Amino acid sequence: MSSKKEKTREFILDASYALFAKQGFNRITMKDICEAANLSRGGLYSHFSSTRELFEAILEKINQKEEMNFYEEMEQGISATQILDKALALMEDEMNHAEDSLSLAMYEYAGSGETVLMEHFNKMGEAKWTALIQYGMERGEFQRVNVAEIVTIILYAYQGVRMWSRIVPMTQETIQSIASHIRKQLIKEKKYNGI
Amino acid sequence: MSSKKEKTREFILDASYALFAKQGFNRITMKDICEAANLSRGGLYSHFSSTRELFEAILEKINQKEEMNFYEEMEQGISATQILDKALALMEDEMNHAEDSLSLAMYEYAGSGETVLMEHFNKMGEAKWTALIQYGMERGEFQRVNVAEIVTIILYAYQGVRMWSRIVPMTQETIQSIASHIRKQLIKEKKYNGI
Repeated sequence: MSSKKEKTREFILDASYALFAKQGFNRITMKDICEAANLSRGGLYSHFSSTRELFEAILEKINQKEEMNFYEEMEQGISATQILDKALALMEDEMNHAEDSLSLAMYEYAGSGETVLMEHFNKMGEAKWTALIQYGMERGEFQRVNVAEIVTIILYAYQGVRMWSRIVPMTQETIQSIASHIRKQLIKEKKYNGI
Repeated sequence: MSSKKEKTREFILDASYALFAKQGFNRITMKDICEAANLSRGGLYSHFSSTRELFEAILEKINQKEEMNFYEEMEQGISATQILDKALALMEDEMNHAEDSLSLAMYEYAGSGETVLMEHFNKMGEAKWTALIQYGMERGEFQRVNVAEIVTIILYAYQGVRMWSRIVPMTQETIQSIASHIRKQLIKEKKYNGI
């Protein structure tokens, strides 16, 4: 793909991300995206043929970015505690920005019967966290825990807050307790001198 | 309220619960509810003037029922462990029935700007769990924990699973890990001979 074409594609993804986050999946039309990205119909359709294709490209991009970090950092031998703290800080930041959440859009997208891709991403999330916790336990940094259980808590407590932050206002205390709880499960208190 | 009128009201609430759970809040009209409850327009409007009023009555009913149990049981001096186990079993049952979840409807209802009632229910949920955990700690049944943190985990891990169970299929293992994690936080292992 030429660099200019690639740039336009990225620009479309960013512009439509904002629309999906704000209004969900169902309400958004290709016309809305043309307007937001300041593109002609032909210009947009040369990149994406539907809002579905576009939304899936956004999910793909987010997921690739997030997944890469974990595995790359483990390969580089970075400490599990550091990887965890970075991930938790990112999660806190995301929980603090309800307006950027794609939760409603994912909900609506999945409601239209399209669960395969969501399942795939969910499994990737599980796999990534499972790998990090095992890595931390092998290095003696993390306590011996029931890995599947902690992964479940990480994924769904986070998702619960993200979803509910669009229903009720979230306090800083609530958001911080998620990260603090996860940290406590994994890191022995005496060893830990972080936040 | 006369007994017959009360019965019709309850019947309308049950019939519309199923509609809201299946289709969310936005799509449902008073006409749909007339059909589901087999009532004339006049019959329905003598009880509720809008889907909003109806939906709020459903939320109120669920919440009253759930709240009562906790406080009543504590007043009766029932053991905290027993109250907890009953509540966790109920939560597991609810997580196993994605199709009965009002999550999407609540999401849509709140999305229309109506957050006061949802905030109220959220606060009641927090208060109820806070009271139970404190009760359990006072009785020496529960470990000394950071109450606000554990309440956050309970509420949002549960909500995360309920919401996501409509996006991806949930395994029994995932659902059970939520309950098992909560139980472990509160109950000292040696003392606990439950599930």
